[in-house]
Amino acid sequence: MTETRNGADALLATLTDNGVEVCFTNPGTSEMHFVAALDQQDNMRSILGLFEGVVTGAADGYGRMAGKPACTLLHLGPGLANGLANLHNAKKACTPIVNIVGEHATYHRHLDAPLTSDITGFASPVSDWIRTIEKADDVAAIGAEAVAASMSAPGQIATVIAPADTAWNPTTHQSGASIAPQAPNAVSSAVIAEAAAAIKSGAKVALLLNGAAVLADGLEQVSRIASAGNVMALGDTFISRVARGDGRVELPRLPYFAEEALATLDGVAYVIAIGTKPPVSFFAYPGIASELTPPGAKALQLAGPADDVMGALAELADALGVTHAKPTLLTRTEVNAPRGTLTPETAAQSLAAQLPDQAIIVNEAATSGFAIPPLTAGAAPHDWLDLTGGAIGMGIPAAIGAAVACPDRKVVNLQADGSAMYTIQGLWTQAREKLDVTTILFNNRKYAILQVEFMRVGANPGPKAMDMLDLSRPDLNFVGLAQSMGVEAEQVTTAETFHKALARGLAVDGPYLIEVMI
Amino acid sequence: MTETRNGADALLATLTDNGVEVCFTNPGTSEMHFVAALDQQDNMRSILGLFEGVVTGAADGYGRMAGKPACTLLHLGPGLANGLANLHNAKKACTPIVNIVGEHATYHRHLDAPLTSDITGFASPVSDWIRTIEKADDVAAIGAEAVAASMSAPGQIATVIAPADTAWNPTTHQSGASIAPQAPNAVSSAVIAEAAAAIKSGAKVALLLNGAAVLADGLEQVSRIASAGNVMALGDTFISRVARGDGRVELPRLPYFAEEALATLDGVAYVIAIGTKPPVSFFAYPGIASELTPPGAKALQLAGPADDVMGALAELADALGVTHAKPTLLTRTEVNAPRGTLTPETAAQSLAAQLPDQAIIVNEAATSGFAIPPLTAGAAPHDWLDLTGGAIGMGIPAAIGAAVACPDRKVVNLQADGSAMYTIQGLWTQAREKLDVTTILFNNRKYAILQVEFMRVGANPGPKAMDMLDLSRPDLNFVGLAQSMGVEAEQVTTAETFHKALARGLAVDGPYLIEVMI
Repeated sequence: MTETRNGADALLATLTDNGVEVCFTNPGTSEMHFVAALDQQDNMRSILGLFEGVVTGAADGYGRMAGKPACTLLHLGPGLANGLANLHNAKKACTPIVNIVGEHATYHRHLDAPLTSDITGFASPVSDWIRTIEKADDVAAIGAEAVAASMSAPGQIATVIAPADTAWNPTTHQSGASIAPQAPNAVSSAVIAEAAAAIKSGAKVALLLNGAAVLADGLEQVSRIASAGNVMALGDTFISRVARGDGRVELPRLPYFAEEALATLDGVAYVIAIGTKPPVSFFAYPGIASELTPPGAKALQLAGPADDVMGALAELADALGVTHAKPTLLTRTEVNAPRGTLTPETAAQSLAAQLPDQAIIVNEAATSGFAIPPLTAGAAPHDWLDLTGGAIGMGIPAAIGAAVACPDRKVVNLQADGSAMYTIQGLWTQAREKLDVTTILFNNRKYAILQVEFMRVGANPGPKAMDMLDLSRPDLNFVGLAQSMGVEAEQVTTAETFHKALARGLAVDGPYLIEVMI
Repeated sequence: MTETRNGADALLATLTDNGVEVCFTNPGTSEMHFVAALDQQDNMRSILGLFEGVVTGAADGYGRMAGKPACTLLHLGPGLANGLANLHNAKKACTPIVNIVGEHATYHRHLDAPLTSDITGFASPVSDWIRTIEKADDVAAIGAEAVAASMSAPGQIATVIAPADTAWNPTTHQSGASIAPQAPNAVSSAVIAEAAAAIKSGAKVALLLNGAAVLADGLEQVSRIASAGNVMALGDTFISRVARGDGRVELPRLPYFAEEALATLDGVAYVIAIGTKPPVSFFAYPGIASELTPPGAKALQLAGPADDVMGALAELADALGVTHAKPTLLTRTEVNAPRGTLTPETAAQSLAAQLPDQAIIVNEAATSGFAIPPLTAGAAPHDWLDLTGGAIGMGIPAAIGAAVACPDRKVVNLQADGSAMYTIQGLWTQAREKLDVTTILFNNRKYAILQVEFMRVGANPGPKAMDMLDLSRPDLNFVGLAQSMGVEAEQVTTAETFHKALARGLAVDGPYLIEVMI
């Protein structure tokens, strides 16, 4: 317990006493007392982002890998607003975050000063839980509640709005006592029995998986369960965190495009969602179904994101009599160095050959990333983090957070060019904190996904429309951008030079960017 | 009238028929039909930003200079979220904007796909008016209403949420008929009489000004009115657009820091707000008043932002018998080239000497900008745009919009380093559109304003806290950043080299960035 002098000190003491160790921030005047309080807490690391999208995306990456929250510290409504897109991604990923937003002093809020805004309004769409502190004596209790809320199943965004006078006013209320987070909901035996009956029926069953079901232990249970019937296990198209590689259970994904997803699920009699919900299309397309459970098939939800996924898997395995079955595990595939044309495929081949043991892959490679998962399935064991909410600009920041959470593991960020420009400022934080992140930047000089989507939605683009998808006028120089923010970088144009560049990047104990011209 | 085929075509036809000529956008899949419709409208220029903060900030700069709206086209909730901070600034500036946000198809919204979010929730804090289109047949009418709402006094953010199926479905409803915007409210004769009596009393009166009162004609009325009593005319600390320089009326500003503002207003018996509201402090500080009207003084609001400011000024001048008084106008001050140390002051001296006639200055220079207004008051006639809402990252984007609105005028962006990193991607759009913007980037390698504020709020920062205000680890290379996005740039370290660099920058018919090391 640290001696508490004002509300800001009480908040920091409460957070550290409740296990929060990292604060990602871009503060302003209204947060100065909170910033000053950082120096009172040896157990709180504070990391500056040059833009709040970097801050919140880093908190997302951190929470996914640490399994507990970082806190943010954001400047009023506009600071929060800049971080909303990556909070949206984090909410879809069920990442625990204590999201702290400074506010004008309580007596200043009604005056409509330039920075006054409806902070609760901005925060509501991305928050599972929101509290506004009204006096310094409440800071500690609300801080402890926020940590508990963030850790409640399945992981939540807990937003604390903290007026400046609640920070600077004195308080004798010491650090808030720990509160137990809400545990996952137990799954009823009737639901277990229904799923078991479906699998036992011999009919074709698809398991759609996310959350704890796609970590290493969950996937082993899935593999056992799959052995009991005619079962296809599929991951959600985008997953918060999935265990992959040597010694793990291979997990194909539900394809991104609705037609391909429907083809994959064709002939399935049951779709059983575990740690997720029944499948829906990412976007609507004219004339294509939005709900992807095939007509005539039955959708079951064995366990939603907030349910006890591991408990449900264990009971289902038990009901199927496969608790002691041996899961089917991948073994390491030896891969040669690629030659010739540099493509996402040859880059993936190089990555599969060189990926360090226990690496963390952050995937925001968009179209360039489609080919990479199957080609790296047999690489060294690693964790893989996806863009869960579709709000681009997650890759560079999430790599920051993953590297902070796991300083002994290499982070590899597979990054599309267009998405990179959303939060390119994050490279500076990687340099500042000397984070062990190798960024593989696929530069195709366009929003390639939209060129595909244009055709799929049935629109008929002319030259003005196509110009809105073009990033080549002028070309962006990602090596120059990285170097200008202190990150070592090089550009490559062949598979051979990529292979060598990747070796150099992975050997560096710090950030490195490889611009892959495809 | 253009032939209309689907909802997207109807929206574009309606916008162009109602005078909207520019679309700033970063679209996604759900907006592809709107993007395709751009090619049907020769009168709509479409400009791509690499991030939505660039898009909305450009729309703000455009609206301030054009006096009519640009439209945006943003991708779902997260795309809007990324643009909220600059919409906040635009709302505080009373800038007309038609803010178009794509949404999932109406039948897809309830499925909680990855990009599903509460768009109305995100939009509400920054929007004066919001409509969600529910069918293609309503597109044209809602589009026309949106233009009228944006142009209603004093200028508003009108947000249209447009589901994808309202874009792709056919409609026979042609372009929406123009709707008259809501005119400014007339000011009652009682209010005019009260203000006139205050001025006639001979007591010390402060006029606090914004909106139409600080454009060239408004300031001439203010000058006449000031001649009728013991009157001090002051602009709001931050102004949407103010006319300055040779041939204009000089306008000092209410100081940013509350103590200085209170000192400026000391001894005033009346504070009369015109085109604004009575003064409040930007932030709250312990022990300092938030409301800046001095104790014992009376605050009057002659005209709020939505009132008929020019009518009120004319009636007040008439009531005071000064309608035909001669306003006091500035004349051009000849300034020598600066020598020696490069500071904001010597840079301002060089700018005053070289500023082109009818330039537009976009000011987001933070502490580096404090000294510049008085030193450039006697420069060539120009317009000056401030950061109205305190949400940093407005400078580079607003310069884009001003340059698009006024292609025959030079735009000069006075830009702080920390703020620049919020929307640095905007330099690429300046290069792409060959916009005539000279950026003067003051690189002091810190959030200097926060170092000042730390002392003022009474916090006691230690080394961790001070590290959160430091931008020098590693140094940012703004020349490299600009060049990597296609913008010509150079770095200067002396007043003499700045003077020559500014001459080069102003001579270029396109974007140019000068990194000023201070």
